[in-house]
Amino acid sequence: MGLGVVGGGVASALLQDPSTVTARVGIPVNLRRVLVRDRSRPRDIELPPGMLTANAEDILDDPDIDILIEVMGGSDPAAAYFRRALSSGKHVVSANKEVMAKEGADLMALARANHVSLLFEASVGGGIPIVGCLMNELAANDVYSIRTIINGTTNFILTRMAHQRTAFADALSEAQGLGYAEADPTNDVEGIDAAYKLTVLATLAYGCRFSPDDVFRQGISALEPQDFRYAEEFGYAIKSLAIADQNGEQVQLRVYPALVPFDNMLANVNGVYNAVEVHGSLCGQVLFHGMGAGRGPTTSAVLGDLVETARLVRDSAVPGGPRELSQHLGVRPIDALRTRYYIRLIVADQAGVLAQIARALGDEDISIASVLQKDADAETQSAEIVIMTHPALESSVQQALLTIGRLDPVRRVGNMLRIEE
Amino acid sequence: MGLGVVGGGVASALLQDPSTVTARVGIPVNLRRVLVRDRSRPRDIELPPGMLTANAEDILDDPDIDILIEVMGGSDPAAAYFRRALSSGKHVVSANKEVMAKEGADLMALARANHVSLLFEASVGGGIPIVGCLMNELAANDVYSIRTIINGTTNFILTRMAHQRTAFADALSEAQGLGYAEADPTNDVEGIDAAYKLTVLATLAYGCRFSPDDVFRQGISALEPQDFRYAEEFGYAIKSLAIADQNGEQVQLRVYPALVPFDNMLANVNGVYNAVEVHGSLCGQVLFHGMGAGRGPTTSAVLGDLVETARLVRDSAVPGGPRELSQHLGVRPIDALRTRYYIRLIVADQAGVLAQIARALGDEDISIASVLQKDADAETQSAEIVIMTHPALESSVQQALLTIGRLDPVRRVGNMLRIEE
Repeated sequence: MGLGVVGGGVASALLQDPSTVTARVGIPVNLRRVLVRDRSRPRDIELPPGMLTANAEDILDDPDIDILIEVMGGSDPAAAYFRRALSSGKHVVSANKEVMAKEGADLMALARANHVSLLFEASVGGGIPIVGCLMNELAANDVYSIRTIINGTTNFILTRMAHQRTAFADALSEAQGLGYAEADPTNDVEGIDAAYKLTVLATLAYGCRFSPDDVFRQGISALEPQDFRYAEEFGYAIKSLAIADQNGEQVQLRVYPALVPFDNMLANVNGVYNAVEVHGSLCGQVLFHGMGAGRGPTTSAVLGDLVETARLVRDSAVPGGPRELSQHLGVRPIDALRTRYYIRLIVADQAGVLAQIARALGDEDISIASVLQKDADAETQSAEIVIMTHPALESSVQQALLTIGRLDPVRRVGNMLRIEE
Repeated sequence: MGLGVVGGGVASALLQDPSTVTARVGIPVNLRRVLVRDRSRPRDIELPPGMLTANAEDILDDPDIDILIEVMGGSDPAAAYFRRALSSGKHVVSANKEVMAKEGADLMALARANHVSLLFEASVGGGIPIVGCLMNELAANDVYSIRTIINGTTNFILTRMAHQRTAFADALSEAQGLGYAEADPTNDVEGIDAAYKLTVLATLAYGCRFSPDDVFRQGISALEPQDFRYAEEFGYAIKSLAIADQNGEQVQLRVYPALVPFDNMLANVNGVYNAVEVHGSLCGQVLFHGMGAGRGPTTSAVLGDLVETARLVRDSAVPGGPRELSQHLGVRPIDALRTRYYIRLIVADQAGVLAQIARALGDEDISIASVLQKDADAETQSAEIVIMTHPALESSVQQALLTIGRLDPVRRVGNMLRIEE
């Protein structure tokens, strides 16, 4: 059977060792065309002459290509390619979180209507097989929550900040130097990448259409080394989590740096590793831990999907297909979140400050669980107060912080972080 | 479409909330017959009259039953039921590790020949979706190793012994009292259950027929509380691991209690939890952690397979089927294992003992990494010596222990455990 590939890396892996896939499928799986932007760029593996093309039609219109593999990224023109391929009876394997987050529901319906397969394991979690598991192995569960560390770049930066007490900017530079972060790190550090991935997971877990715009996002650039120190004193790590959880007829989707107790497995996911914890009605809590990115893990996911798809082609089989997205759940606004909070304030070093702050919190029905007041800085005559609250409503905390920010002795609100027990 | 169930528990779950499966599949999935040993036994859920039967033919010969679900356990008569069902075009979903370990390869071939599906996620790992992942999502990897904690009963007992310093017999009684261990605990504590599960995983991971007899087994009943104390002093937990790893053209399969460094995630899998760590050529190390047994997790796995199978029936689809078991790998004998060892000896409290022991080890090319000699027991005039070796060959260690056991001042070999870094 024939393959067309959009993007170079996986093509190289396929050519380097085609026997792996062929052995799994049982019949030869041949790479026919590879679409690249620049045909003259040097590549790891020399592709046979005539295999490279800069013209998508050479793949989309080739009737001998049964499966389109897409690893180029971005929603445009990938979505258009997918539509043409699926409509003309080609199966699609994709590594593209953006297109699946933005147009996945429609594309899955199109695949279904055309009796072809659309698999996208590599779009989320790299070597962690969470996409397939939500579609199949865990499909009988009502999913209470999915809590994830799903962006390796931010997890690398946060691990550095936690273990070396590095400032954010320095940890980011280091990540860029190692190739973990891009020159423009916005997508990673502002949680955009994580929001795409969370959208894909939530769509599958809840059988419902969600959009990246449904995700509340808070980035990690405002974190300071002392946040890690204080969190540690209270027994918590700081991790950027992407969370989906159901509450009645609503699902809440959120990406933010949160305090996680050290005895929780998510607190011990370090460096570029990812983790996904699914809490289901039947399976209980299942945790997946592995490499979330990189060439090997991505190739593992793409080729796993390819093997599955190629077996369908081999047997002239029709895919059973994923669940129909027939659920209609609302999106719960972040204001409705109820959790515990970590609040760090920089205040003037004078008497009575804490009383004023406590009153502002009390007025919003927020009760304090513990307080840490650090020695004053003689030079600036300021001190830091760290407050851990009991469970409180997000909207109340936001309101209280506005009030607190306006208090005379409060220099600024250093940080507000949510606690995920 | 129609279902026949062998065994009661899952049937109850299906009847209690049939909407879950129907919602995932999109068309009604109806339970038609349930085979039970004793029709008069009281059940959690009252089954409609006429649904219960004690005659397997009522299911196997019913042309309206598309899918056979088997949760009875044991290889006989399950294997015979499977053969009849698969041969007559029925799909099979099984939770049966024993039949899959002993006859899985033949049954998979039979399913393949009859273009029907045979899924068995619930046979290993309960709520951990490792079976499907090895068949599909991770299928493109060459698997270097699978290291697992795959028997919840032994992990519960070992966790108790580690944390409460309980004796084995007491921890076992407690497990029996809680329903985690059976009256005859042999299958669990001697590693038979783990060997079945490891056989199933290795067969899928290596695409090769293996038998439970290929698994080297050592149970946990000889462990004593001081083994946990000494291991801890060296920085290790003791866990019963089931391991498959490839070495050239051979795979070694082994189940035994081993020392695992505390900073390894497997060391922190406690109580009745299970974990599976797959080290693949592309995905790197992926770890799965979850509930390995119990009604919820088993139901999750069985219904997940059912949803996948029912989608095939819905679409009149032919399953792509798992990989053909076309590999021919040998089984590496335990004698060829090379690892580090923990050796606890009870010796007479007299001078020169350690020198004699060290000589016996040195004669077999075993070098000592560290030694712990504990204060003598005045009453018995004996002392305990704990030795951690550098990497050594199993056959040499066994030979050295024979020699050491015969030394005059050595009262007995307390324990020998392997170290898994």
